[in-house]
Parts: sequence; structure tokens; C-alpha cells
Amino acid sequence: MVESPPATWHGVASMRLCTRLTERLGIEHPILSAPMGFAAGGRLAAAMSNAGGLGLIGGGYGDGEWLEREFAAAGNARVGCGFITWSLAKRPEWLDLVLARSPAALMLSFGEVEPFAAVVRSAGVPLICQVQSMAHARSAVAAGADILVAQGGEAGGHGGHRATLTLVPEIADYLAATVPDTLLVAAGGISDGRGLAAALMLGADGVLMGSRLVASEESLAPASFKSAIAAADGDATIKTCVVDVVRGYDWPAEFSGRVLQTRFVMDWQGREGELAEPSTKEVEAERYWQGFRNGEVEDTGVFVGEAAGLIRDVRPVQAIVDAMVGEAATLIGRAADRLR
Amino acid sequence: MVESPPATWHGVASMRLCTRLTERLGIEHPILSAPMGFAAGGRLAAAMSNAGGLGLIGGGYGDGEWLEREFAAAGNARVGCGFITWSLAKRPEWLDLVLARSPAALMLSFGEVEPFAAVVRSAGVPLICQVQSMAHARSAVAAGADILVAQGGEAGGHGGHRATLTLVPEIADYLAATVPDTLLVAAGGISDGRGLAAALMLGADGVLMGSRLVASEESLAPASFKSAIAAADGDATIKTCVVDVVRGYDWPAEFSGRVLQTRFVMDWQGREGELAEPSTKEVEAERYWQGFRNGEVEDTGVFVGEAAGLIRDVRPVQAIVDAMVGEAATLIGRAADRLR
Repeated sequence: MVESPPATWHGVASMRLCTRLTERLGIEHPILSAPMGFAAGGRLAAAMSNAGGLGLIGGGYGDGEWLEREFAAAGNARVGCGFITWSLAKRPEWLDLVLARSPAALMLSFGEVEPFAAVVRSAGVPLICQVQSMAHARSAVAAGADILVAQGGEAGGHGGHRATLTLVPEIADYLAATVPDTLLVAAGGISDGRGLAAALMLGADGVLMGSRLVASEESLAPASFKSAIAAADGDATIKTCVVDVVRGYDWPAEFSGRVLQTRFVMDWQGREGELAEPSTKEVEAERYWQGFRNGEVEDTGVFVGEAAGLIRDVRPVQAIVDAMVGEAATLIGRAADRLR
Repeated sequence: MVESPPATWHGVASMRLCTRLTERLGIEHPILSAPMGFAAGGRLAAAMSNAGGLGLIGGGYGDGEWLEREFAAAGNARVGCGFITWSLAKRPEWLDLVLARSPAALMLSFGEVEPFAAVVRSAGVPLICQVQSMAHARSAVAAGADILVAQGGEAGGHGGHRATLTLVPEIADYLAATVPDTLLVAAGGISDGRGLAAALMLGADGVLMGSRLVASEESLAPASFKSAIAAADGDATIKTCVVDVVRGYDWPAEFSGRVLQTRFVMDWQGREGELAEPSTKEVEAERYWQGFRNGEVEDTGVFVGEAAGLIRDVRPVQAIVDAMVGEAATLIGRAADRLR
């Protein structure tokens, strides 16, 4: 079963994997694109929706102008949006701005979902809550989430400590026993048809994909970031607070960010207190943001998960989705053939 | 796809999942039992082999008398054995003791596999190397391993930092490109048919299971440990060095042990330096080992992975294996039926 998809799979778009998620959201493939701050703009989200999944614009740390622009960039595509919940709490008005556009779904990640959950529900927009533990899952269910995204710590960007492989089936059991109509999406470490097929076996109704899409043609990431991801193996990432300290972002202590082990990150890993000193931080923040703007990989932070080791090229979203669905379907069919 | 196996699956032993692993090792099901120190004695290993998988006795920290006794306890069952490599280096004679018994396989985990790999190979015994990263995988291939076990950090006991979900497909690709006849087994977070089916989708030829088997009738763990595992959710574990510091075990810094968050562990987590002071360590080691011997869960360390959240009972190995294979086969068949 150890085979890579042949190149011809790029065109196998006729294959379908129908799940409760495709039915509920009215989409063709059970694949969502992660609402990644700085990377998931309207073009990426629209490309995912046009490829048969559902694209989510990354509301990130909240910036009204950015949101307006990226929703415009999505054109007529039916897309959703995701927010960092603790950050949204500082600028709750962005939620109304997005809800006014009737998004296909609204996703909340990282932090207390109330009172936002009630607002989303009363707008009649499907509420997706991303969770990183059983404790989070219970809160999301209590808040009335329509869909839970179970995110393992192998994911790129911010996350918790549980692994996708155990979190997904444990939450699946919990939902089945308490709110069986609530759907479950797996996130963290999924970047190809193998991950999609595995997630379905674990009890997920679909997957949410981030890192693989950072390295798509449509993402907002600098070309040099995409090349660095394609070149990295899966050992090359680290979970760190360095990138938040230097940016002055107030992340709750339970979450850290997975990034490439660039020189910037490794210079400061374990010396976060020193980095936080105002005079140092000012200099290093300039280095970080200049590196970020100019795509100087080693002088900034490149958010990506362990799946970096499975990503070897930069492709259009449509090709990524087609290959993923074709590979998953082939793997499932082949495994079924081996049953005795 | 979110369904638990019905009780009747306990008896579905007629279903088979044939892979390269079942062919290579001459076993019925692609399932190995982990050679867990203190827990995986001859009775557990024999039960796994008798259930159609391959059982591995846990050579642990090396104790000749213990090994003799547990090989005797395995009776006529065809079993293998596993060692902690860095510990074996201190007592290399135990390897000869085990090889003299013609084990079905010899597994090495944690540390430099040479010169042991050459000894195992020249004895004509299949060599299994457990790896936690791409760097380890490359070393194991260089040492001529017949089978790699890719172990994610969600596993119980000692492990590294990569997750099973990304490590398995990345190593699968590496093996396919370099040594396509070398087999791959997934470990870490796998405790039921969902995990088995997922591992096959990721490109593994089979799985190695630990935590689920600690909570089997045949394991050497105290009954109270088994009950604690069945009661715990998957958030209840932590990766720590506390258990090694108190036991005076010299683990390489890249590995830590995943255990339940018992009072003992949480008392000392973050205070390892203080615990290491001789007078403190003497007192606490007495507390730890007394708790371990007497099954006082809160005063000792209980090694188990995140899969604790998927384990809800203590059952015989045969029932665990039968349910796992039946569930995996059903999930694969059902997914195949959904392909359009």
C-alpha cells in the first residue's frame, strides 16, 4: 500500500467520497481549507471551493480592510471565514462584517467561543469550532457547534498537544454518544489522499487542510516560503512561542505555533524572556517583519506542520484536491480488495 | 463512519487483512504487541501470537532472570523480543541469551542500533528497528533493518516528537524510494480497528500496539493501572522525564516518557533538578517503587499513550485482536461502498 499517486491522478476528478460533511455543506469533496492568517486569502479560499471543497478565508488577528479585500478577491465563490477567537474578542465588530456577507460557514479557533457562537447561530450560519483536546470538544458541543474540527499538534501554525490520530476517534465517540448530528473534521498532518483516507477511517466526516495549501499557487505566502516547505522534511519543524513573542501577540499559554526551524526561530528558542525585552524586541520585530515581507525565510517565521515532509511541490489547489481524492479512493478500493 | 464495534465483533475472527507483514512474518493479522518493559511478559506476548499477531517480550532495561522466566512463560508460542538499545549497550550479553532462543524477531528501540544490528542479522533473525524521526529512519535503513516501526509521540512510554500520522507516510515514501522491500509498521495512538485501518491507509504494512495491551488481561501491569487507563481520557497523559529521574534511568535527552498525570508525576513536573538531588531521590524512589509494586496509581508512574481515551475496558488479547480486525475490515468495506 506504499505507493505514491501516479501523475495521471491529477485528472481523476470524477471520483467522489461522499460523507455527511459533503451532504451538510453541499460540497463535492469532504475537504476544507484552513483559515490561515496571512496565507488564506480570498483567492485560495475560492480555489478550494471551486475545486469541490469549501474554502475558508483566514480572519487571523482581525483587520477589516484586509477582510474586505479578501472577500472581494474570492469573487462569486461560496466561501466561509475563520477567526482566532481570543483575538476576535478584542475586535468583535469584524464578526458582524463577515456575517453580513452570508459566509458558507464561520469557524472559531483558540479560545472561549461564547458569546460569538450565539451570534453565529442566530445568523443562521453553520458554526465550526476547532478544538485541540477533549476539554475543548466538550465546550464546543456546549456552545452548539454544528461541526467540530479536531486539530492535532502536528498541524502547522498554532495548536495544542494532542495528536490527530487519537483525538479524532475519541471525539467521534464523544459526539456519537452525546450529539450524533454534530459533524467531525480532522486537521493536523493531513496533506494527501493517505491522510484523507486515514481520517475517514478514524471516524471523521472530512478533513481540513492547511500546510499543503500554503504551498499552493493560490496562497498569499511568499514564493520562497513555498519552496522552503517543499524542500523541508517533517523533522524540520518546531513548536515555539518565539514567533508570538516577537510579534507581540498575546497567545494563551496552552497554544504554541509550529514553524520551520529557521535561523530566526532557533536564535531565540529557549531565550524568549530575553527576546521580550523592549529594546531587543523592537530590533528583532523589524528583522522578523522585514524577513516576512521580503520572503527571507531564515530571518522570519514560516508556519507549517509536520506534513512539510509530505509536500514536495507547489501546485494549484485544483490539482492538489483532485490528486488527494483520487489517491484516497484508490487506497480504499485497494484495501477492500485485500480483505479475505 | 462514526460507529463503535458492536459486541458481536468479538467473535469475527474469520476476517483477515493480508499485507506484506503477514506474509513476511507468517502471521494471520498485521499486528505486533509492543515489547513494553514491566508489562509485556511471556504471557502477553504468547497471547498476541496465539491471537494471530506476533508478540514481543519486553526486554526492557535488561535482566537475565526476568527474560528467562518470561520466555518460559510464553511456552511454545512463537514470540519475539525487544530491547531498549542504549540500555542493552550496558549488558550486551542479554542479546545472545535471547538470540539463542531463536526469537521470531528482534526489535531495537531508542539509540544506536549498531553493533547489535549486525549480530541480529548474522543470527538470521528478522531485525525490527523502532524509529521516531526521519533521521532515525535513515540510520535504521543504513543498519539493514528488515522492518521499521514508525512510532509517533502520542505513544505511551518513551518516544520522540513526531506524530504517527505524518511520520508513517513520510517513511513509507522514503522506503519506497530507497529500500522497497523493507517493511513499515505504525505505532503510537493505535488501539482499535480505526487505528489499524488508518495505519494501512497511511502506507504501513501493519501496526504495533502498546497501551491497549497494557489494559489486557494478560499484561503484567497491576489491576489498578489497567482500571486507571480504562477510566482516563486522552487529555490525561503527559510527556515527562520525572519517571526517569526518580528511577535513575539514563535516557537520552531526545526521548521522554508518556504517562498518566498522576499525583507523583505532577508533584515533580518542572522540578526535575530538585528531584535528582540524592536525598530527595532516595525518598521519592522508595515512594515510586512501592507505589508501582502495590499498584498505588497516584504515587507512581503509569505508562500509557493518548490512546487511553479510546480504551474503556480490560479484555483478553484474543478479544482485542478479533474486535480490531473485524472493525478495520468493516470500516474499509463501508468506505469502499461509499465511493461514487
